[in-house]
Amino acid sequence: MIAVLKPGASRERTEHLISWLKDQGLGVHVSNGEFQTVLGLIGNTANVDMEMIQSLDIVEKVTRVSDPFKAAGRKFHPEDTVVRVGQAAIGGGEFSLIAGPCSVETEEQITFVAQEVKKAGAAFLRGGAFKPRTSPYDFQGLGAEGIRLLLEAKRATGLPIVTELMDIRTLDLFEDVDIIQVGARNTQNFDMLKELGKTDKPILLKRGLAGTIKELLMSAEYIMASGNEKVILCERGIRTYESTYTRNTLDLSVVPVLKRLTHLPVVVDPSHATGHTYLVESMAMAAAAAGADGIMIEVHNDPPHALCDGAQSLTPEAFARAARRIFKIREAMAE
Amino acid sequence: MIAVLKPGASRERTEHLISWLKDQGLGVHVSNGEFQTVLGLIGNTANVDMEMIQSLDIVEKVTRVSDPFKAAGRKFHPEDTVVRVGQAAIGGGEFSLIAGPCSVETEEQITFVAQEVKKAGAAFLRGGAFKPRTSPYDFQGLGAEGIRLLLEAKRATGLPIVTELMDIRTLDLFEDVDIIQVGARNTQNFDMLKELGKTDKPILLKRGLAGTIKELLMSAEYIMASGNEKVILCERGIRTYESTYTRNTLDLSVVPVLKRLTHLPVVVDPSHATGHTYLVESMAMAAAAAGADGIMIEVHNDPPHALCDGAQSLTPEAFARAARRIFKIREAMAE
Amino acid sequence: MIAVLKPGASRERTEHLISWLKDQGLGVHVSNGEFQTVLGLIGNTANVDMEMIQSLDIVEKVTRVSDPFKAAGRKFHPEDTVVRVGQAAIGGGEFSLIAGPCSVETEEQITFVAQEVKKAGAAFLRGGAFKPRTSPYDFQGLGAEGIRLLLEAKRATGLPIVTELMDIRTLDLFEDVDIIQVGARNTQNFDMLKELGKTDKPILLKRGLAGTIKELLMSAEYIMASGNEKVILCERGIRTYESTYTRNTLDLSVVPVLKRLTHLPVVVDPSHATGHTYLVESMAMAAAAAGADGIMIEVHNDPPHALCDGAQSLTPEAFARAARRIFKIREAMAE
Amino acid sequence: MIAVLKPGASRERTEHLISWLKDQGLGVHVSNGEFQTVLGLIGNTANVDMEMIQSLDIVEKVTRVSDPFKAAGRKFHPEDTVVRVGQAAIGGGEFSLIAGPCSVETEEQITFVAQEVKKAGAAFLRGGAFKPRTSPYDFQGLGAEGIRLLLEAKRATGLPIVTELMDIRTLDLFEDVDIIQVGARNTQNFDMLKELGKTDKPILLKRGLAGTIKELLMSAEYIMASGNEKVILCERGIRTYESTYTRNTLDLSVVPVLKRLTHLPVVVDPSHATGHTYLVESMAMAAAAAGADGIMIEVHNDPPHALCDGAQSLTPEAFARAARRIFKIREAMAE
Repeated sequence: MIAVLKPGASRERTEHLISWLKDQGLGVHVSNGEFQTVLGLIGNTANVDMEMIQSLDIVEKVTRVSDPFKAAGRKFHPEDTVVRVGQAAIGGGEFSLIAGPCSVETEEQITFVAQEVKKAGAAFLRGGAFKPRTSPYDFQGLGAEGIRLLLEAKRATGLPIVTELMDIRTLDLFEDVDIIQVGARNTQNFDMLKELGKTDKPILLKRGLAGTIKELLMSAEYIMASGNEKVILCERGIRTYESTYTRNTLDLSVVPVLKRLTHLPVVVDPSHATGHTYLVESMAMAAAAAGADGIMIEVHNDPPHALCDGAQSLTPEAFARAARRIFKIREAMAE
Repeated sequence: MIAVLKPGASRERTEHLISWLKDQGLGVHVSNGEFQTVLGLIGNTANVDMEMIQSLDIVEKVTRVSDPFKAAGRKFHPEDTVVRVGQAAIGGGEFSLIAGPCSVETEEQITFVAQEVKKAGAAFLRGGAFKPRTSPYDFQGLGAEGIRLLLEAKRATGLPIVTELMDIRTLDLFEDVDIIQVGARNTQNFDMLKELGKTDKPILLKRGLAGTIKELLMSAEYIMASGNEKVILCERGIRTYESTYTRNTLDLSVVPVLKRLTHLPVVVDPSHATGHTYLVESMAMAAAAAGADGIMIEVHNDPPHALCDGAQSLTPEAFARAARRIFKIREAMAE
Repeated sequence: MIAVLKPGASRERTEHLISWLKDQGLGVHVSNGEFQTVLGLIGNTANVDMEMIQSLDIVEKVTRVSDPFKAAGRKFHPEDTVVRVGQAAIGGGEFSLIAGPCSVETEEQITFVAQEVKKAGAAFLRGGAFKPRTSPYDFQGLGAEGIRLLLEAKRATGLPIVTELMDIRTLDLFEDVDIIQVGARNTQNFDMLKELGKTDKPILLKRGLAGTIKELLMSAEYIMASGNEKVILCERGIRTYESTYTRNTLDLSVVPVLKRLTHLPVVVDPSHATGHTYLVESMAMAAAAAGADGIMIEVHNDPPHALCDGAQSLTPEAFARAARRIFKIREAMAE
Repeated sequence: MIAVLKPGASRERTEHLISWLKDQGLGVHVSNGEFQTVLGLIGNTANVDMEMIQSLDIVEKVTRVSDPFKAAGRKFHPEDTVVRVGQAAIGGGEFSLIAGPCSVETEEQITFVAQEVKKAGAAFLRGGAFKPRTSPYDFQGLGAEGIRLLLEAKRATGLPIVTELMDIRTLDLFEDVDIIQVGARNTQNFDMLKELGKTDKPILLKRGLAGTIKELLMSAEYIMASGNEKVILCERGIRTYESTYTRNTLDLSVVPVLKRLTHLPVVVDPSHATGHTYLVESMAMAAAAAGADGIMIEVHNDPPHALCDGAQSLTPEAFARAARRIFKIREAMAE
């Protein structure tokens, strides 16, 4: 961390600041320039309140030189993390499609969708048992029964399953779930992240509704700091001023940005991002071309009768077509 | 809810849509215009997926006519809700200052600050025991011990206390807390909201980092639908493209907007919104002039040594000056 | 346009509103529902102030049923517009790369870059003569001399040229320019748009820094309403809260959204959107996969010495590689 | 400006960078730390492309230490600028209300409104002659005739007038206008700003729709660098994700931020910011409490029949009430 002092900062006050910084356990390297003094701070600066120092009247500017993500950062872990579940893998060159309905509704529905998406090339089955809905009056998901039905579909097809945890008190129900999803609204539910860090399950961590790249990585850091390194990051659209024609704005540049900053795999969810069926295929193809390690797509046997998010679900036929085109993009990239 | 069909929608498909809507338990009022058919939907439309209907190819546009907030809305509850704790009250013309440090640090610190803010006119003491920090490596708060110290300060000064709950599993520790705060990162932690709805504690509900007005009211609705009507809404700045000179953008127009939509009290937190000491007083005065029912301000005995958010904390002296000026604004408004 | 009246709106006030609407030259179709009256407004509703009607106390909600873009909309012009310049074409299945330096600097520079990008497959040469810079102290471009140099490069390579107009008073200088660019900061400079509507030059219209999709189309409408139908729309990244790792957020979902709403071609500029060289290639590939009709990329012979935006410019070699990969994506999409 | 090099940057490459920086006319002060080298750059760093340097692979971070606004900044011009027109003044403790209709419609209308707002305490009359409308099919203002009518109203009441310039080619028409307004859509129309810098008229410069604080000040800098120092800054709401209940988000914290950064006066426009009559009074009071030097409010004799923006206009009675309350807030602040 670098603190630049204002021109004319008195010697006495400068000494006082330096001794205060040392009290915080930091090494301080002073360089007196012609006009200004620059302090280089060494040590565990992750704990230092930059805004506090910035607010002191002798300080012109404070800059953090190094990124605060230690476990998630590429610096000390250059090779890609690959998350493997059975035959399927995400990251480090391995690419997977994750597909299934927004909500699990019945055994027939989830098993049928599972079979269809498997045929089309999906490697994981997704489905919501616990549903975060803006309104308390909307369908809240089947809960424990939904997880039971997902496990039935897994048995029938062999597809590993991905489903969302909303309340840490229900973690026991997720014992046989393959990947636990943390939704956009819980991405800074730090106590939940800490608890998930104590499990050995892969965690699919969605970016917050208006989460920065740094916040997403710091949330991953919460899980990893507690011991679990199997974190998959998921871009799902961010909130911007444009919400008339798309629900959120899919931020695909985050894919190459994250690939540079972190070794963790990056998945894209074009269904929630756009909110409209007619946008899903082209955005999935774009995500593949941007270098995503996986794409998560909502598929429903009968979108107009879906209990949740029908407007953004593909039919199995539309998903099969999208999958073919996505795989073609992947091939074009490999050449 | 109103669904406008496209010009030339076939009679058969129109009939099919109407019968599907009736299957969802809705009354449908059809009006055939010269060019277009308009369907008026009556009944519990809160459960209807507007986006789904919107996506049907015979539908031009779907519009929700009535607001989805039932318990929080003013329509069925025109008079203001007043939240009372002992002598203090917020809402319905009653105005309160809530003040105290970001984090509780020691018994001396919290009791000293409590005495100072009480002298200056604060009606509530705030202080963080559990702290949501972006980084897992930052100070996470004193936890249960922090609550114990807050209760000591309450005993010493008589000020009721406000403190944040981060993990629903720790709710028991909040038995003697007067107002439970739900932070911006948990504002859509729906399971926590449901649980808080079963208590009879007043809840100070912060707007999400990029929460819409509707989402804030729907989160209040989650608490109220579970039986607890004592909800205080809190504007704390929203995330926008401008973050160089202020941490977030304080949205004061939300105060008169909320006063029109809901009977619940509205409090403003200028400290977290701006992130800079030098902006707190003027934004607190502006919040009072905008009609806020309360203002929550961070006060620390020694901001440069605060363990958290020192850059936005006022000293007790600065708080006393701000309080005087805020009360003058309140008087000017009453004339 | 549909206006829904509040339940219990008095007959007298309803009559008064209807007669006022008729005074505005609108046909009014009244449908009295069980609870509410719905007014269907017919005629030139583009001139009606929706917010005004919305604010009347007997009105519950006003909804615009039809899009306000007449000339740009697909409704009355279903087939794609193709903009052709010599051999090159953009739109309707035709795809073009547009490449060149941010600023024209010298004849050698611009001619060299033109030759290089032509070899790599670019169909148009871009280069800035007039430069919109945030600071008045930054390099403002070579002006008229810059256009002269671009025309030299055109003569040397045969590539048609694209360059930005900043001040309508300099329009005469653009007589031999092939495509006139309107930059993000002038996208709502309505007098300039009207004037460009009187020319017969193709116009490359960039989306505003925080422009909505509707605003972009309405700006195109300004040009088209004055008689010039050759408008190319350009996505160049929008301003969001995330600006640490990318300059703006590239909004690729706008590509399929615009393809549905309008017949005009859509081009993507990943260089300005991201602001970083290392993101350009992957975002260009993603844009191609999203269905863009063209991609505009900054290429500079010597990025570290560029007078403007060097940080986002590709070298000719990097551009050649990106072009190869983009064309492969196009092939994969065509199969 | 400070450039921090990466740990381990080779001596040769470091030397090369330093000599390149010197070529750019900068003084370079090198300080070799234990782990990292820090370069302090001295001289006219306003011209240096920070992003370019940042992108070099031996550079870890570049930070601008001093603000780039020279003429607008407080550093070299600590005392407040006061803009005076006849009796009226804005800035340096002087406060003015600016009021009038969105559009000038008839002589009777504008003169009547002028008389009313004068009685209520307004010091300036505003009114639009040239109107920037999103749609080319909307009323575009009376143009030159509108300015003639404004001058009639000025003659009748003595109120100085404020009106918007949209096209620099019409500048001659503004000879008798007292303050020229630059609208949000032209705030980065740099050629217009330069031209206005050559006049000696006060300029009311609106913040862009999504303009940053820095951009607003740099636009002021364009005017001032050309010689005109009479610039009034105007906050008019910014574009955020919340647009359901307010048109834009009024950013009042910008008032104290600007007061610290610049000596120029700051005015707030709550009418355009909120877009709703019922929000104007409380936001105007909040703006006064935040420390604004002036407030600009839309007033129309007959809002439901206004040709533009009727939904946000106050009647003369409502304006008189708002003015009384605003002046009370001002008094409360002065005590």
